[in-house]
Amino acid sequence: MGKTIAEKILSEKSGKDAYAGDIVIAKVDRIALQDGTAPLAIKQVEKLGLEVKAAKITHFFVDHAAPSPRKELSNDQKLIKEFAEKVGAEFNKPGEGIIHQLMVERYVNPGDLIVGADSHTCTYGALGAFATGMGSTDIAIAMALGKNWFRVPESFKIVVEGEFQKGVFAKDLILWIIGELGVDGATYKALEFHGETIDKLDMDSRLTIANMAIECGAKAGLFKSDEVTKKFLMERGRGDKFREIKPDEDAEYEKEMYFDVSDLTPIVAKPHQVDNIARIDEVEGVKVDQVFVGTCTNGRLSDLEVVARILKGRKVHKDVRLLVGPASREVYMKALERGYIQEIIKAGGVILPPGCGPCVGIHLGILADGEVCLSTQNRNFKGRMGNPNAEIYLSSPATAAASAIEGKIADPRKYL
Amino acid sequence: MGKTIAEKILSEKSGKDAYAGDIVIAKVDRIALQDGTAPLAIKQVEKLGLEVKAAKITHFFVDHAAPSPRKELSNDQKLIKEFAEKVGAEFNKPGEGIIHQLMVERYVNPGDLIVGADSHTCTYGALGAFATGMGSTDIAIAMALGKNWFRVPESFKIVVEGEFQKGVFAKDLILWIIGELGVDGATYKALEFHGETIDKLDMDSRLTIANMAIECGAKAGLFKSDEVTKKFLMERGRGDKFREIKPDEDAEYEKEMYFDVSDLTPIVAKPHQVDNIARIDEVEGVKVDQVFVGTCTNGRLSDLEVVARILKGRKVHKDVRLLVGPASREVYMKALERGYIQEIIKAGGVILPPGCGPCVGIHLGILADGEVCLSTQNRNFKGRMGNPNAEIYLSSPATAAASAIEGKIADPRKYL
Repeated sequence: MGKTIAEKILSEKSGKDAYAGDIVIAKVDRIALQDGTAPLAIKQVEKLGLEVKAAKITHFFVDHAAPSPRKELSNDQKLIKEFAEKVGAEFNKPGEGIIHQLMVERYVNPGDLIVGADSHTCTYGALGAFATGMGSTDIAIAMALGKNWFRVPESFKIVVEGEFQKGVFAKDLILWIIGELGVDGATYKALEFHGETIDKLDMDSRLTIANMAIECGAKAGLFKSDEVTKKFLMERGRGDKFREIKPDEDAEYEKEMYFDVSDLTPIVAKPHQVDNIARIDEVEGVKVDQVFVGTCTNGRLSDLEVVARILKGRKVHKDVRLLVGPASREVYMKALERGYIQEIIKAGGVILPPGCGPCVGIHLGILADGEVCLSTQNRNFKGRMGNPNAEIYLSSPATAAASAIEGKIADPRKYL
Repeated sequence: MGKTIAEKILSEKSGKDAYAGDIVIAKVDRIALQDGTAPLAIKQVEKLGLEVKAAKITHFFVDHAAPSPRKELSNDQKLIKEFAEKVGAEFNKPGEGIIHQLMVERYVNPGDLIVGADSHTCTYGALGAFATGMGSTDIAIAMALGKNWFRVPESFKIVVEGEFQKGVFAKDLILWIIGELGVDGATYKALEFHGETIDKLDMDSRLTIANMAIECGAKAGLFKSDEVTKKFLMERGRGDKFREIKPDEDAEYEKEMYFDVSDLTPIVAKPHQVDNIARIDEVEGVKVDQVFVGTCTNGRLSDLEVVARILKGRKVHKDVRLLVGPASREVYMKALERGYIQEIIKAGGVILPPGCGPCVGIHLGILADGEVCLSTQNRNFKGRMGNPNAEIYLSSPATAAASAIEGKIADPRKYL
């Protein structure tokens, strides 16, 4: 019987012929933790008296509170560093970047099984890896044993066709898809992305889409590996890690959905849910106080490129705070080399240290009462950015840049 | 009878022949406020029912919590912006930079009388302006009337001679001077800086020295205006604002002190007081967890230059978080153009948005319990950086950079 990508990877890693609904115990290739949840996982390791046998494939990152805004969080970060050093796991200082970006830059390969103490671990599916977020106890077990149990998910086949209009991006597509599915429309399913449009997407765009799979409840968001994947790996000296990952032709899907992007306009998610989507013309003119470009969804080089291109020779509106957070040190460096950072600063934007920035509501741009933020992040529930009396809209970086100029939600197509 | 610089400026601004000990009512040229104290001043304006007649010379800055780490502070910033717009005063968004750097870049001229809702307003004395910090009620009065009362301070004449060794800077000198005077050794006095060494100092160095006058209790730290001042003003299109400010030859000083920098080594202030100074060889080897280069004391272009020069081709120690905060958008832009930012990032440093950074203990690098920070800021009392169970050492940017490389307090002279 044919297999989906999820079934193939979980079969290989468990050594069993596994299909949707099966429970398997599978070996994991990498374990990733960030400063928000790592302290809980560490406490579980200590409480359960576990030995961290998988330390060599365990990676700690400080991105949620980087650099730390409170002494309690500073103490957490110190605890993480000391634990990592004790067991021999990798520790990354604040300012290195976002867990998911760094994992992708350094470690994720097609066919990998990766677990992370963060819900957006699903990002790595862009490279043909089965990757998913888990609770702290499960992550503690993975650190101890190098494996864990998984229920093999049913898969949804998402087929995308047509050509994007200028000014419409992967972010608009995934917002549309989530709008169609609803925030719990794919709970514990694997989304598998196919179609001519998907095949043509660059890696940054695939990462944006895979990143948001969790926003409709999915366990994973999966892409085939192909020439785009190979090129990405080769550029990072991991060309030898390329392998073809694709579903069997007769794989079984619980559902198939078709999207044609030909007529897709820029999409915005309105407060306070990701699936509360609107076409750009339905929300144009909504006044914004803050615009944030960054996060594991849209803080990559191509995101900064389009923002710099739109801002070039223009000025951020006087009533808008434009905050831009590169997803990693490497993204920052490349954006510097190419002049994107310079253009953003010249236009009046503010560059944040690599990390999650204000997305998680801890620091670096908490909203005031009654304020509106347009963000390229993946979530907009009430209070997400630190103030329940504020509103968050989600969009692509292009829409964000256009809106920063106009001081209100604006259509980026006129700037591109 | 001859006059000191303080007596000259306060005489001119009050229209009276004023000497030390006199009380005068004087017209102020500028009023500066930052987000930490502006809300208090605004509340006083409203409580006292004042009309802000001096709005055109009133400038609001958001630097202490930029971008905001808490919704209460975000609400304060919103209040400040709305108030500034209502009365017609200037408002600067978070990320533009530090109040004192922006005031100096844009507005401060020799002979000015300037008040600020911040103790380090004394920085502007570097340009031959009498500038001082005041409480919120006094600032409210200044905003309403464009004037306030001052007790003309007695002056200390600080004469500095000799040539700096390589690796020794203005910061080392002012730490030495404060060490000699003690933290309350010049309470309500004006420090007036003279001597061949002072005459040769560039503007950045003068700003560093004037900035720290308050650390021995002084009301102001004053420099003559000269060719260095003229050049600085001309570069900013304010060449026409140059005027000669100097004391009369027969001015009377309460005290005269002589310093010869020829044998001065790098100086470090140990926890928990600015006057608790040590020569570099007395503290070399103290392990540091965080190094911070920035603030109104040492976040200027020449500070980033020396840090970049020392870091070039080297790496920040694995156990150290190096945080670097440019003092303003302009400093950031120039440091980008000259490649300083790039060198700092390549070495492993983290660039913060222009603003006060972690200096004030609100965010962007709060220390964990038991941690040690070496900082280029001006204060190191217990808890200053957000955790009373941590230690802060103060130094020049060069010493900070050398220490970031070695992971412990290090002598910068070997790197220069």
